[in-house]
Amino acid sequence: MLATISESPLYRIARPESIAFFGASNNFSAMGSSILNSILTDGYEGRIFPVHPREKKVLDLAAYPRVRDLPEVPDLAYIVLPTKIVAETLRACGEKGIRRAVIVTAGFNEVGGEGAARQDEIKAIARDYGIRFTGPNCIGVVNSHIKLNATFLPSLKRPGFIGMASQSGSFITQMFDYLGTRYGQGFSTGFSLGNEADIDMADGIRYLGACPETRAIALYIESIRRGRAFIEAAREVSLTKPIVAFYVGGSETGKKACLSHTGSMAGPDRLYDGVFKQSGIIRARSVEEMFDFCYALGACPLPEGNRAVVQTHSGGPGAAAADACGRSGIALPALSPETLEKLAPYIPHTGSVNNPVDLTFTKNPLDYFHAIPKVLLEEEAADSMLVYFLTSVSMIQRAMVGLGVPQDAIGAQVEKFIEEQCASLAALMASHNKPLLGFSFLTRDNPFIAGLQDKGVPVLPSPERAARALGALVEYGRLRAKLARSKPRVPA
Amino acid sequence: MLATISESPLYRIARPESIAFFGASNNFSAMGSSILNSILTDGYEGRIFPVHPREKKVLDLAAYPRVRDLPEVPDLAYIVLPTKIVAETLRACGEKGIRRAVIVTAGFNEVGGEGAARQDEIKAIARDYGIRFTGPNCIGVVNSHIKLNATFLPSLKRPGFIGMASQSGSFITQMFDYLGTRYGQGFSTGFSLGNEADIDMADGIRYLGACPETRAIALYIESIRRGRAFIEAAREVSLTKPIVAFYVGGSETGKKACLSHTGSMAGPDRLYDGVFKQSGIIRARSVEEMFDFCYALGACPLPEGNRAVVQTHSGGPGAAAADACGRSGIALPALSPETLEKLAPYIPHTGSVNNPVDLTFTKNPLDYFHAIPKVLLEEEAADSMLVYFLTSVSMIQRAMVGLGVPQDAIGAQVEKFIEEQCASLAALMASHNKPLLGFSFLTRDNPFIAGLQDKGVPVLPSPERAARALGALVEYGRLRAKLARSKPRVPA
Repeated sequence: MLATISESPLYRIARPESIAFFGASNNFSAMGSSILNSILTDGYEGRIFPVHPREKKVLDLAAYPRVRDLPEVPDLAYIVLPTKIVAETLRACGEKGIRRAVIVTAGFNEVGGEGAARQDEIKAIARDYGIRFTGPNCIGVVNSHIKLNATFLPSLKRPGFIGMASQSGSFITQMFDYLGTRYGQGFSTGFSLGNEADIDMADGIRYLGACPETRAIALYIESIRRGRAFIEAAREVSLTKPIVAFYVGGSETGKKACLSHTGSMAGPDRLYDGVFKQSGIIRARSVEEMFDFCYALGACPLPEGNRAVVQTHSGGPGAAAADACGRSGIALPALSPETLEKLAPYIPHTGSVNNPVDLTFTKNPLDYFHAIPKVLLEEEAADSMLVYFLTSVSMIQRAMVGLGVPQDAIGAQVEKFIEEQCASLAALMASHNKPLLGFSFLTRDNPFIAGLQDKGVPVLPSPERAARALGALVEYGRLRAKLARSKPRVPA
Repeated sequence: MLATISESPLYRIARPESIAFFGASNNFSAMGSSILNSILTDGYEGRIFPVHPREKKVLDLAAYPRVRDLPEVPDLAYIVLPTKIVAETLRACGEKGIRRAVIVTAGFNEVGGEGAARQDEIKAIARDYGIRFTGPNCIGVVNSHIKLNATFLPSLKRPGFIGMASQSGSFITQMFDYLGTRYGQGFSTGFSLGNEADIDMADGIRYLGACPETRAIALYIESIRRGRAFIEAAREVSLTKPIVAFYVGGSETGKKACLSHTGSMAGPDRLYDGVFKQSGIIRARSVEEMFDFCYALGACPLPEGNRAVVQTHSGGPGAAAADACGRSGIALPALSPETLEKLAPYIPHTGSVNNPVDLTFTKNPLDYFHAIPKVLLEEEAADSMLVYFLTSVSMIQRAMVGLGVPQDAIGAQVEKFIEEQCASLAALMASHNKPLLGFSFLTRDNPFIAGLQDKGVPVLPSPERAARALGALVEYGRLRAKLARSKPRVPA
């Protein structure tokens, strides 16, 4: 266990105060230039020192011909150079006193033969100088909380609570859009680990476990290199923070693809299932599931048990959620007489107070966001809630017209209404300390969906995905309790 | 089998030339008014006759006090009236000579007791007059090809090739946005079946099987009422058109929810699995899967077998696709020496020509849309293709700058470029007659994704979903061949 986050070899990689940058030029289409451009665009506030043999300025920053010319010893060297000059550059960084590096350059172990020898060489240099590094063959690091996007693709500049350690850079860089448009999230911190010549997945887990901005940890795994270290790190971190792993080497076709992607030797599914279980890790079966689970786990308190109540005003989505709950180990208990009594005023004659509670429609849309979920959160037979959202802005506008709101005031009133309703539901979840997951086929283009998500109510894109995410919350609660029992208690 | 589509009782429900509308008024917030408003908004070109006891005009249409006052006998009666006056209205329609109806009104079998008696009453009236109808307790009908949206929610006015028969109206009305934003599609024709007092799922299957605008059929099922008729209809239609069913009554929680939603008695999963298999129906496990499968099945030719090649420039998404292929019964064969030779000029030194073909990057973005997929479609060891798209518009813009395109011409050139590339790939799929499915984490906000979809290349939102959709294509091919073998051949 890390006593403090600064003990992690990743600390100054994820939170550098200054960066020596190798491989950027004024040729905008070069990979290095793209990365430096991303760093500048996102607004990183640390000091950046481009090193370039000829240019005086690189992307308007003062450039230095050699690393030894730099006016200070930067926290981090960022290396995006041709393969054959990586080793000498790393040595020069060591001479200068730099102790952390990100080696983006490819052409090492993953290409075999000579590449493997090159990887051994940089490992030896790093050892000699006490340099810790990620890569080679990685895409870099992002930390939305210090506005650092050191990858070649633009981020949406959104902060977030999902931390990620990935054996594919794509699942960092190509997910900026995904997390932003689906959940309104960015990565708290994300590491592309590449060939893991030095820093690996176990280090990533420990760092993210200690990272105060990270509430849930996503791992993309093609193979685990240090099995024991991985399990130890994951067991420790899982006690306080959920970890979700997506492993793709379990089928024959997946195994072969991993071998040619990062040169890793994947193992059979069952082996990895066992590793994840004893580590307290939740296994996701797809990229979508990995992020759905992290999103829900980071947004919600843990449920006490597996009993849920479903609130809907559409029968089909309610039935689909109920069926998916059953398949995810979630029970839907009957409501207590007290709850039925409290609900009665809100249920139209076409509605049903079975579980799912299917309102068919609500007389007053306010009830859907406050009075009804409040009653259902108070239900002692349930540990959690799923709520379907079909939130039509035009219906609210029409209702405002009906209430006599003047035409020119409607826009602002609708906005205020949405803001208040979403905040009210988020407050209910917090005060009852039970998870409440929304689901909707609408996207963040609908201001209710964006509002709910931004206020802290997770909204997933289908009944099945919401039910499975709730299943992940229940599973994490169980795994964590089991880990806590098996761990000898340390006196405070 | 229907000799012609006009034999179907649904023919004049899906394609009415004139409608008598009951339950619309000038109170805009009433359900009936909302439906009539949708009909007018979408631009239905048939004749509409609102019937209203007092109003002279309803939503600017001439209204008639009684159905017998109408100047003609409309094809269809659309009934959105209070429960207690539905029976007498239906009788008056029968007297007038109307022979088709959609009964939206609820409060029948699904509420039990008196409701069941009311349902028997309308069935008897319909029998007396030879009226065929959908509902009661349904949401209506949509047919994008005649611009008919007779539901209370706005459609996106997009035509499409997915036909649907649904035991929940939500999966019609609440999917306009979903199909539009995910696939750029609308429903060819969709029926909300409600309580199925008369017309049921089997009729829906036969109609959609004969519908020329429908290329794939989605069924949302809570329970099957006429088992034998359902199987017969599905077996016949499956021979020429794919059917995908999403059944939610299979778990205990799902079964209970169905009972309170439409009063239907769901059966165990295994029973339904058997029914689907012998009917040639592909079973989907979620709403998302149901539409993914229909979308891919409607967009692609069928593969000859289960062997695919994956094209990517990102290792992680490629590995995830490979693993998901393995889990969906898709094999990824090694490429032939001929293919390897033809590919060589396009593969950078960091790339891999294993399957997945991982380019890491393409020297010329044109190759990714034409030269490379052309080589891979020619590969005789593969029956189909999956292609990953990470299509950055800003990268194309930068390339244009690099090629010396003047600043003010870049916008139009980029647009033309995207249009041409997408069309080129769609043409390749057509000329090789092999399915090609794209996958991307981007949405239709990216013009490449919208362009590909609109030109006919289906793009799914994740590697797993694309692999499962390809699995559905393979499965349908097998089911269809089996059905064809078991069916005695009728001489031409």
